[in-house]
This record gives sequence, structure tokens and C-alpha cells, in this order.
Amino acid sequence: MLYFDHAATTPPSSAVLDTYIQVAQQYFANPSSAHLLGQEAHHLLNNARQQIANLLHFERNEIYFTSSGTESNNWVLQSLLSLHADLHPDKKQVILSAIEHPSIRSQIDHLQTSGFEVILAPVDQNGQIDLIAFKELLNDKVLLVSTMLVNNEMGALLPIEQMAESLSDYPQILWHIDAVQAITCRMKWIHQARIDLLTLSSHKFHAVRGVGLMAIRQRVNKAPLLFGGGQEFGQRSSTENLPAIVATAKALRLAWEVQEESLQRLTHYRDQVTRVLSENNWRVFGGKQDQISPHIICAAFPGVPGEVLLQAFSNAEIMISTTSACSSRKKNDHHTLKAMGVEDRVAQSSVRFSFSQKTNQIEIDLLTTKIKEISAKFMQDLKGV
Amino acid sequence: MLYFDHAATTPPSSAVLDTYIQVAQQYFANPSSAHLLGQEAHHLLNNARQQIANLLHFERNEIYFTSSGTESNNWVLQSLLSLHADLHPDKKQVILSAIEHPSIRSQIDHLQTSGFEVILAPVDQNGQIDLIAFKELLNDKVLLVSTMLVNNEMGALLPIEQMAESLSDYPQILWHIDAVQAITCRMKWIHQARIDLLTLSSHKFHAVRGVGLMAIRQRVNKAPLLFGGGQEFGQRSSTENLPAIVATAKALRLAWEVQEESLQRLTHYRDQVTRVLSENNWRVFGGKQDQISPHIICAAFPGVPGEVLLQAFSNAEIMISTTSACSSRKKNDHHTLKAMGVEDRVAQSSVRFSFSQKTNQIEIDLLTTKIKEISAKFMQDLKGV
Repeated sequence: MLYFDHAATTPPSSAVLDTYIQVAQQYFANPSSAHLLGQEAHHLLNNARQQIANLLHFERNEIYFTSSGTESNNWVLQSLLSLHADLHPDKKQVILSAIEHPSIRSQIDHLQTSGFEVILAPVDQNGQIDLIAFKELLNDKVLLVSTMLVNNEMGALLPIEQMAESLSDYPQILWHIDAVQAITCRMKWIHQARIDLLTLSSHKFHAVRGVGLMAIRQRVNKAPLLFGGGQEFGQRSSTENLPAIVATAKALRLAWEVQEESLQRLTHYRDQVTRVLSENNWRVFGGKQDQISPHIICAAFPGVPGEVLLQAFSNAEIMISTTSACSSRKKNDHHTLKAMGVEDRVAQSSVRFSFSQKTNQIEIDLLTTKIKEISAKFMQDLKGV
Repeated sequence: MLYFDHAATTPPSSAVLDTYIQVAQQYFANPSSAHLLGQEAHHLLNNARQQIANLLHFERNEIYFTSSGTESNNWVLQSLLSLHADLHPDKKQVILSAIEHPSIRSQIDHLQTSGFEVILAPVDQNGQIDLIAFKELLNDKVLLVSTMLVNNEMGALLPIEQMAESLSDYPQILWHIDAVQAITCRMKWIHQARIDLLTLSSHKFHAVRGVGLMAIRQRVNKAPLLFGGGQEFGQRSSTENLPAIVATAKALRLAWEVQEESLQRLTHYRDQVTRVLSENNWRVFGGKQDQISPHIICAAFPGVPGEVLLQAFSNAEIMISTTSACSSRKKNDHHTLKAMGVEDRVAQSSVRFSFSQKTNQIEIDLLTTKIKEISAKFMQDLKGV
């Protein structure tokens, strides 16, 4: 079985799972408990927080653990935004990129009902944010800008440095980056100091499921989404999922250590796969190498529905997806491709191949062989029609 | 090392951890993914949901997975309550028991700011809800009643059958039960059909950390707390924490299978420990056997601060707590004891011993021996003063 759906989720690495088990067995106490075991658990929690802070270039007390990227994004668009709206009643605009994840997009109705004006920053045919249009949208009424760093459907890398520059004239605008897809190859970009709020998700980088990260600069006013025992500096109550948190810190470190090598290797894989796709009647989406994260390839085989393509690969024991897993409930919701101006007919025929740092050359070679076979079969079918 | 802080958290059992690892390794795909691996993951998720529904006497589509008991409680008091307030603008009263967990209590300010009238149902000196007072509080303006089934600080078992009877005259009142502490010995009480909403937490019954359960009857109108990919029947978005969910279903089944035996055995342990405590100058809180869950013993040694008692036990490698872990950030917050009318002086000297289904006679014998030693030492100290 070959798994090329890493943008949906990655399997936990065995090293990370070992850490999870060790913590679950030996440091099982509640980090809030005052006894010796509780203190040890609390110490581990602090260490994990410090390690993650170091990797992300945030301070230790700026790192908050949630349960998922979705929860972190909800925290931003619910209680944090609501607090800042109270603090700045004259600012009612929220700018999102046109290609955000469902955990951001699905809140637009709610935001509008709550009195916010939601403005979508457009992208070009390669999924690149239109920087001139973006700059023109900025003004004194903008409360929050929320943009992903790497798009989950087709891999577009947003020009974070240029956006930071545009935002430098508006220091009061909160800038939230959803960097959930950035860890595989583009982790370094997270270090941009203008970012106010940052979302990450454990299961996208070979950690275990169930840990979201929310990094919030000290300069940002905070309000909790979940109330209770006052864990996470009073900002996110719930008994801390310590084994998963420590495992996540380890996974993030391991991902960091192979960043440069992964970027090069996956760029090579992407080149190889896109070449084969192009040679076999596929249309590959996305622009130049520096505008994309190589771990996601979105491509269409016009004339064959994405579901049929997916099934053909699945029958060949190759796991790919039609769109993001979080969008798969809504049939044919190729949101990003539509925002890029891709015709419906083509978008319906698109699928996503996504890699992780652990994807290897043997898997890629098997994939390209299968792409050739499956493409040939469908070309035959289409000719037959 | 002896661990008697199971009300704060329980270690995952090895059988449950094995399940977690197996699912994390073999069924790592995103349950939303359409390919074969995703379908298998989705199938496992469905099975876990059905198993839990069967045990709780709910329907499969009434079980929602969250990340914690705290999140479930926040869901109830935030979006669910808000939706029902919109549906019933004439109903503005919310009744809580006076001894709720911080994840309920800490929202009182927020509820009041949102225009709700929060009324606390009083308890007697044994932590038992005053049924006459409770019945008198019910009226047509009440939107929600939220009460715990087993108190986390001293084990009081709320008279759920009598409360259900009182509530039978008001079918429109939403009744939420926080049964987080009920699984060890009082799981059967959850089957009361009048319950509309039910909260459970995985890590209180030897499952892994990070799964909350929210059971919501089909008759109840629903509104999500977290928006996004539409997982959990559109009510709780986030990639499902499948390994932890399947492990939790197993842990709940294992807990269920030894319910009766655990109740008897832990009642015997409680008798033994409370006898030794009483004989050694401790005051034990709580009423008769049928008014308490035997896995929690709260007792005070007047004259010695709880923290000092805890430290003495911790030095003897016995892990106990002063109050609930979720309250431990607020020094001396013996909320339940205060609601029971216990004098501050005595409450400050209280600690909690809590057991799980896996607590055994050898541990209890060692505990009673240590209680005698530590009590003797402190009696000596007090006389010396």
C-alpha cells in the first residue's frame, strides 16, 4: 500500500509513538496535581512548551496547547476576535485569503452575523495572493487578517515576507497565520516576527493526533475559548494531553532537523511526478518552485471525475484524495481551484497527491509507474467514448 | 509509589494503550478520506461510537467526540445554551448545583454578562442536593439545569432519580449531567432517560488522555462550538482523534464489565480507610453509602494545612491531592466543602484520597498503615505546640 494523502494526516513515526507510550505510562499524573508525580508531569509539560517555543521563535509563555488546528482557528475567530472587537469598536473588517481551510471559511456566516465585514483577498491562477490587491485592502478599519502559509488543496506558498511588509504600516492589525501545512517543507517561514497568532496541528508532521498549537505573542490581548480549571496560563482549560504534547514537541524537532533536506528531496519528487503527469495528459496546478510547497501536487485529468480517479488509484493500493479531507463531506468542493479561476469542469477532475518528509524515492517511482498505467487506461476509455 | 489521585486522572491501562498503538499504526488515515484506508478508519470510528452508545443507552448518532470533559461542558454552556436562549427568549434562568466542577462554575460570570440569571441549587452538609429547594427552583423560565452526577471533591452522589422526577413536570428544561466522576462506580445511573445532555472524560477511567464525550439526545436542538470540516455530524469539527477514541470505547467497556464488583470492593475500601481516618483524628466528609461514590474520600485533619498533609504523604511516596486538580491553581479553593457549610479552618486542612477500579487491597493496607503513622506524627506535633 502506498500512502500519498499526507496533507490529510500523517502516520505517527515510531520514535514519536515510543515517546507517547513512555509518557503515558510513566508520567500519567495530572500536571496540575501538587504531589511529586504531578510535579514531574508539570515539568515535562514546561519542557515541551520551551522546546516548541525555541523551534518556532516564540517565547515559552506564548505557546498554548489546544486539541487541533481547527480549535486554534476557532479560538482566533471567536473569542480572540470578539475581545479585540470590544477593544476597538471602530474596526469591523476581517480579511481572509480566498483559499482558506474550512475551519476558517466556515465561520464567515457567523462573523457576518456578529457584525463583521468579511473581505476575501483574491489569488491569481497559481493560488498566489494578489499582493497589490492585498495592500489596497488594508486600512484602519481592519481588525484581523487571517491567511494560511501553505494552501492545503494545491500547495500554494503565500508570500509571507511581502505580506508582512504591507502590514508593517498597520501595526494594530492582528495577523493570524494558519501554518498547518507548512511544517513539511516551509517551517522556517514561521519565524517572521510580524505574525501575531499562529496555528499548527500535530498530526500533519508525524506526531500523534489530538494536539493543536496556538502561538500568541505577548503583545496580543487574550481571551479564552474554553473556560474551566485555568490550564495553559488561564487561556485554555482542560487536563493537558501530556503524552501527545511531549510527542508533538519531539515530532516538531525531528521535522525541523530534516527541513532543508526535505525541501530539496520533495522538490525533486514534485518535479518528477509533475513531469510524468504533464506527459500523460494531466494539468498540474500551481506556479513556480518558490511559490509552492513541494509536498502537495494538485492535478486534473480532464474528462474523468476526481472520485473515479481516486478509486482507480485506491484499487491499485495508492491512497490519494480528491480535495482536502476536511472538505470531502461537501462533494466537489474544490474551493481553492475555484478561487484560482479554474473551470468547474476541470476542478471536478482534480485529485491531490501529498507527500511527507518520510516519502521516499521508491514510493515516488511506483507512483509514477501507476500514473502512467492509470492515465493510459483512462485515455483509452475517453477515446472509446 | 502509591497513587491515590485517580479523581484527577487515571493511568491508561495496558490493554487500552495497546489498542491505541494498534489503531495509531494501522488505521492512521483520516476518517474523512475517501480512499480505502480512510474508509477503514471511518468504519472503526462508527464502531467505537456504536459501542459507546450501547453502553450509555444513547443512540449512535447522539454520541459526539470532543477533546475533554471541559470542552463538552463549554459546548453546553456556550453554543448550545445560546441557541436555546434564541429559541426561547422568555427563558433566562440557568440552574447549577452549588458544587459543580470549575469547567461549569467558571462560566457563571460569562453567563451573567450574556443576560442569564444563574441560580445555585444548595446542598446539605453531606454534599447532597436539597431536593425540596431544587424542586422549588424549577419554573417555566428555566432554560437549563446542569448538575454533576458524582462530585469530584468529596464524592457526593446526586439523587438523579428524584431530580428526574422533579424535572418530569418541566419537559422543556434542558438537563445536562456532568458524569465525569461517575464511571468508576456509578455508571448505571447514566441510563436515566430524562437526561438530555451528558459529559464524560476519557482519562477518568483508564483510557488515554484527550477524549471528551458529549451525548446529546436527538430531541435537543444542536449548535456547534467548533466550526470547520463538519466532522461529528457537523457539530464538532476537527480531524477525529481515532486511536484515542477507539481506546476510549474499549476502556469504557472494560469499566462497565467490572461495575458491580468495583462498587462492592471500593465500598469495602472506603469503609476501611474512613474507619482508620476517624480513629486517627480525621473528619471524613459525606453521608451514607448510597449518597456517595466510594472512590473518593475527602477528609480533614484539623490544625494541619492540606498542603502540609499532602507533602507528608508525597514524601512517603503516596500521591494524594488537596482538592480537585482543576482547582489547585487557586490555593485553598475548597469550593464543595464551603457549599456544604464546612468551616474554612477545617476545609483548609482537608485532602482527597481517590481510587480507581484497579486500586487493590494491598495498596489500601499500605495506605491505612501510612495514615496511622502520619496522623500520629502530626498529633505529636500539634501537642508539642
